[in-house]
Amino acid sequence: MKEDNTRRLGLIGSGFMGKTHTFGFATASRVFDMPFSIELDCIADATPELAQKARRLLGFKRAVGDWRDLINDPQIDIVDITAPNAFHKDMALAAIAAGKHVYCEKPLATTVGDATEMANAAQAAQVITQVGFNYLANPMLVLARDMIAAGELGEIRSYRGIHAEDYMADEKNPWTWRHDPIGGGALADLGSHALATAEFLLGPIERVLGDCATHISERPGPDGASRTIDVDDVGRAFLRFANGASGSIEANWLATGRKMQHEFEIYGSQGSLAFSQERFNELQYYTNLDRPGQRGYRTLVAGPEHEPYGRFCVAPGHQLGFNDLKAIEIFGFAEAIAGLRPEPFNFQAGLRVQALVEAILHSVTEQTWMVSKP
Amino acid sequence: MKEDNTRRLGLIGSGFMGKTHTFGFATASRVFDMPFSIELDCIADATPELAQKARRLLGFKRAVGDWRDLINDPQIDIVDITAPNAFHKDMALAAIAAGKHVYCEKPLATTVGDATEMANAAQAAQVITQVGFNYLANPMLVLARDMIAAGELGEIRSYRGIHAEDYMADEKNPWTWRHDPIGGGALADLGSHALATAEFLLGPIERVLGDCATHISERPGPDGASRTIDVDDVGRAFLRFANGASGSIEANWLATGRKMQHEFEIYGSQGSLAFSQERFNELQYYTNLDRPGQRGYRTLVAGPEHEPYGRFCVAPGHQLGFNDLKAIEIFGFAEAIAGLRPEPFNFQAGLRVQALVEAILHSVTEQTWMVSKP
Amino acid sequence: MKEDNTRRLGLIGSGFMGKTHTFGFATASRVFDMPFSIELDCIADATPELAQKARRLLGFKRAVGDWRDLINDPQIDIVDITAPNAFHKDMALAAIAAGKHVYCEKPLATTVGDATEMANAAQAAQVITQVGFNYLANPMLVLARDMIAAGELGEIRSYRGIHAEDYMADEKNPWTWRHDPIGGGALADLGSHALATAEFLLGPIERVLGDCATHISERPGPDGASRTIDVDDVGRAFLRFANGASGSIEANWLATGRKMQHEFEIYGSQGSLAFSQERFNELQYYTNLDRPGQRGYRTLVAGPEHEPYGRFCVAPGHQLGFNDLKAIEIFGFAEAIAGLRPEPFNFQAGLRVQALVEAILHSVTEQTWMVSKP
Amino acid sequence: MKEDNTRRLGLIGSGFMGKTHTFGFATASRVFDMPFSIELDCIADATPELAQKARRLLGFKRAVGDWRDLINDPQIDIVDITAPNAFHKDMALAAIAAGKHVYCEKPLATTVGDATEMANAAQAAQVITQVGFNYLANPMLVLARDMIAAGELGEIRSYRGIHAEDYMADEKNPWTWRHDPIGGGALADLGSHALATAEFLLGPIERVLGDCATHISERPGPDGASRTIDVDDVGRAFLRFANGASGSIEANWLATGRKMQHEFEIYGSQGSLAFSQERFNELQYYTNLDRPGQRGYRTLVAGPEHEPYGRFCVAPGHQLGFNDLKAIEIFGFAEAIAGLRPEPFNFQAGLRVQALVEAILHSVTEQTWMVSKP
Repeated sequence: MKEDNTRRLGLIGSGFMGKTHTFGFATASRVFDMPFSIELDCIADATPELAQKARRLLGFKRAVGDWRDLINDPQIDIVDITAPNAFHKDMALAAIAAGKHVYCEKPLATTVGDATEMANAAQAAQVITQVGFNYLANPMLVLARDMIAAGELGEIRSYRGIHAEDYMADEKNPWTWRHDPIGGGALADLGSHALATAEFLLGPIERVLGDCATHISERPGPDGASRTIDVDDVGRAFLRFANGASGSIEANWLATGRKMQHEFEIYGSQGSLAFSQERFNELQYYTNLDRPGQRGYRTLVAGPEHEPYGRFCVAPGHQLGFNDLKAIEIFGFAEAIAGLRPEPFNFQAGLRVQALVEAILHSVTEQTWMVSKP
Repeated sequence: MKEDNTRRLGLIGSGFMGKTHTFGFATASRVFDMPFSIELDCIADATPELAQKARRLLGFKRAVGDWRDLINDPQIDIVDITAPNAFHKDMALAAIAAGKHVYCEKPLATTVGDATEMANAAQAAQVITQVGFNYLANPMLVLARDMIAAGELGEIRSYRGIHAEDYMADEKNPWTWRHDPIGGGALADLGSHALATAEFLLGPIERVLGDCATHISERPGPDGASRTIDVDDVGRAFLRFANGASGSIEANWLATGRKMQHEFEIYGSQGSLAFSQERFNELQYYTNLDRPGQRGYRTLVAGPEHEPYGRFCVAPGHQLGFNDLKAIEIFGFAEAIAGLRPEPFNFQAGLRVQALVEAILHSVTEQTWMVSKP
Repeated sequence: MKEDNTRRLGLIGSGFMGKTHTFGFATASRVFDMPFSIELDCIADATPELAQKARRLLGFKRAVGDWRDLINDPQIDIVDITAPNAFHKDMALAAIAAGKHVYCEKPLATTVGDATEMANAAQAAQVITQVGFNYLANPMLVLARDMIAAGELGEIRSYRGIHAEDYMADEKNPWTWRHDPIGGGALADLGSHALATAEFLLGPIERVLGDCATHISERPGPDGASRTIDVDDVGRAFLRFANGASGSIEANWLATGRKMQHEFEIYGSQGSLAFSQERFNELQYYTNLDRPGQRGYRTLVAGPEHEPYGRFCVAPGHQLGFNDLKAIEIFGFAEAIAGLRPEPFNFQAGLRVQALVEAILHSVTEQTWMVSKP
Repeated sequence: MKEDNTRRLGLIGSGFMGKTHTFGFATASRVFDMPFSIELDCIADATPELAQKARRLLGFKRAVGDWRDLINDPQIDIVDITAPNAFHKDMALAAIAAGKHVYCEKPLATTVGDATEMANAAQAAQVITQVGFNYLANPMLVLARDMIAAGELGEIRSYRGIHAEDYMADEKNPWTWRHDPIGGGALADLGSHALATAEFLLGPIERVLGDCATHISERPGPDGASRTIDVDDVGRAFLRFANGASGSIEANWLATGRKMQHEFEIYGSQGSLAFSQERFNELQYYTNLDRPGQRGYRTLVAGPEHEPYGRFCVAPGHQLGFNDLKAIEIFGFAEAIAGLRPEPFNFQAGLRVQALVEAILHSVTEQTWMVSKP
């Protein structure tokens, strides 16, 4: 450990998520009592020029045109990977080999084999890892998880999860790597969020049976010529949880009108919960313990009693934003690095989600229930 | 045809639905320009005493203790069957044989074989039949169907249907015929509604793959002793529609807190619709034709422009009730009897739903997609 | 009292409310154990021809072209007045003089003087009277009133009531009697509902201070020529209740987009309630007695535990309609006639509302708080 | 102007708003292309010790125990005042005299006289000023304002504004400076927000008539002894806008259950808008231009098309948080300092709100409409 109480961050990639992560680190440093200060040290992008531009924009000190230089730099303590999914494996393995802690955007990898290799390497090297699932740091989701764990809903019986957006609904939207059969499709892209939330709340999913549908069979390719689409536009799965609950998820990127329909409903013998990321400062709660004639879904609203909301604002009802969720996620990662708590969204958790996605895809081909073995 | 312009109704059964039907006939007669007047003539129940009691309560003229007497009475024009599902077949076949028009509560029968026999008999006898699906007469559902048919959503891509309630959520609720493997289970009881709505809106469902889960494995039997439950508490299915859309439904009678979660979401290339029976005077509509920056789900509220709302109330926003929906359903049946329009919810439609339920159950056993052949 | 257990109804007027009342009497007779049966006996309209037409449409036995004939008919037990407001006084006084029970659409009269005369006459004659306030029979409003009375909200501190619609928002809508300074204006038409609901829930309003605004100063007259509008399009008032609460109401008939925004919010020291007639089967309830971190507005949904919902439907969440509310109102009136309970919405209550409207209008002119003395 | 492109911030106060401002400056610097960089230079608090503690917590470079030292420091370019209201005047006048730009928490002052003096001084010194109204920087409010200005609602006729919370609902909450008749009360504290929003959207309010009610007449004082409360718990006002619209506002700090009910409804001849800060990423919009039968309130959801949302997140529906609003507010202030745009929420705007609050209070005493003359 260095003498100073600073960790130096190396960020790879400067797109949507690169920017969001940078905001997150900055906000986390302001809002929380971080166990160490984080220096936005070095940024890597595809070329030196792009990296320099991103450096200025995002406020890093140094820039490199080759991510390997960043990873091999002994000054860097934490590597943050926001490059396209296909690069995650090589970058993460190199960073782990160099003894860095690694923060990697989801999905962890494009295959279970790769994800397994990454998770194993991280475990062997005893570095701290985190996969950025974005929504799980929300205090209202933590409240939901804690209520379930405390038995406030009774025995959990059924679960319904959705992640639907409409960013692929226009058939003129061109082919991208998200349409590549290797790691692409709505199930991999959005279903991974739905599965991560399901496991976060109810624990391990053991068996799955899937359904994938492609509704837009051609999109303009990079050269303008039409390109056949093989991946799912809508992915669905039936689920069985280790706790005995049954459930389902749907991933849909053709859901015209939906911008962030990351939703769930959970039914227990004693109560139920419902949530939508569209109004993520709220949680709907129903309990049979309320008096007959006065039962109904309550809208719980985020406030200081839902930690760490109070770090952002001392008054209830003011609302956290998406970037605030990222800051909470990063604070958790920092505390895990400092040894203050475990990191639940580590590469092992990312591997679990990857294995579930793959098991669902496999079950579609095989037309049979598959056991997910991460 | 008789000389007078009256049709005489014979009602079998006087429970929840018997009462609701009676309200429906009475309200329809007040609200609509019916093609004939309906006389609440005769009611049949299990014993003469019960029938007499029901007669007084519901305002019929005559009562009989044997439903066969009602069906064989030449005075009766229309037979309305609200007896338990297991009796539907015998009653309906007898009524058809006697040349009566038949209004039968859903589900039409407990097996596809029975339903087929009933639908064929009705067709051969050229009597008018209707299965009471309750929710489909809603002007807002008719609006949804018409918007889809007119192409206002563009090409329909995906569908999500739910029918969830909590009336079986308490494990102390005793065993009833709804738990009988012959015709019982959440899928048959509630899923039939979800399937009927799906076909009403999007047309024929061609293939299904199901999932059934039993979460309460024992319930108190009629003798107080514990009785094993074999039917599904939660039934789910993936769907493929003839129009190319993919979809899913869920039927759930353990959904603690839900009283009438009959919901759907429909996504097209140009727009989408969302609906919940919990607020059935509303329909949510999103269209890409709205100006960028000003798009969003619109809450359409039932009013006189949504026929036949205006027959109940000349001012918008006043709200129809559940019993009003039944009156609209009955008005459609009466017009079909008078030859003024076809009856879309006839025994053939009921058979289609029955076949879908059975195909889903079959697909669960076989773990493979099933073609529904009604 | 006659030997038979039947009361004969005479209805004056056959417009929106005449039809609604007829539905209400018919439904009440089906749904409730009425203390007597009601015969739709005679209907009066402006001419014999109109009356005959209405008779056929609404199912009455007899028709008269002069309402006096109806009132003087000894066969008639109950007179139901749905004629324009300006006629209420003469009709009601004649009916009371003839010993009839009187059901009168709101507002009771166009002036406090008239309303006082009517209320006094009814009291002296000891006939039962009812003013049709439409919304107050709703089980969810009765629940609200009972919760307040039982102290479940603690000490009531503030109230906000609204009745807004948009049926006058188009300036091309022609002048009608609703624009006549005698008894017209949004405050008289819609504010009377808001005031009736406020008093129903919280008890007497003692002092008021008003504000009236006319935003459409001309409308097409009956002859097509432009006609000046003097009455309020928006009427507002500050309120002081006898129980110490402060409050406000707004009446607005220019509220583009609102079809039935009859709303209230009530804040007590221990809890609060919120309601909108747009979703009148729901009541929002917040209580400080819920556990910290799990407090929030609960959506209570009408069900059999909210009497008399169960008379219409045995299952919760199915929803009552507007016409059902009218049937409940009529059932209460019938029980009051039979001496089984008092009638809270009698002419005295109608007079209170009339006096409040007049006091508010007076306070606008005088620019000072007015005491309402009915 | 200094040679470097940096402005140095001096912050007075380190409570709720001091912290929120600091977050805002930091986030603004990350998210926006600021016209200059802002250095968190010096913080002042009541004692040197408190100031040092705040310095470490909030990340400033220097700390002083006397705010005069901060203001007189020539290094400081911008003074940010988050001290109690009673100090605003002296601090702001001193800062203006020293040629600093001033960012001051609302309310600007405790009297119109003081606010006038401050606004005049700022104008004379030609420094840029801003009053922190928190909610007005929201892209959805800017959208609302722009839609109104563009005539999309037609002629504006009525307005209803509310700001209700429950932080004073417990009568055991002790007396604070917010209960001091000089500048205290719900109207001054919360009504000032409601009035600022009303003027932001519809332009100048010309006349007011108010109503103030005190429902908790005693609270525990600092010494534990009971202390009489004279200020309003609920303040209401009728409004007349220069554009001809009529309206009302309510300020209520006893609204049990409400955490951030900053709401408005605006009715025009062609459309309407409704908004609640509880879901501030949404705006409800109704327009008569939609097709008959398909009209309804649309829920517009914040996205990149609502600038500057896209600076925070490139994808729609992800949601801004309260602290993000503060960053937008600060960005506007910075651009105003750089001469790139005017600052609409300057001391003059703060004075207008102060004058409206005072006019309402005056109208309560005088029981007559008051003209607001800032």
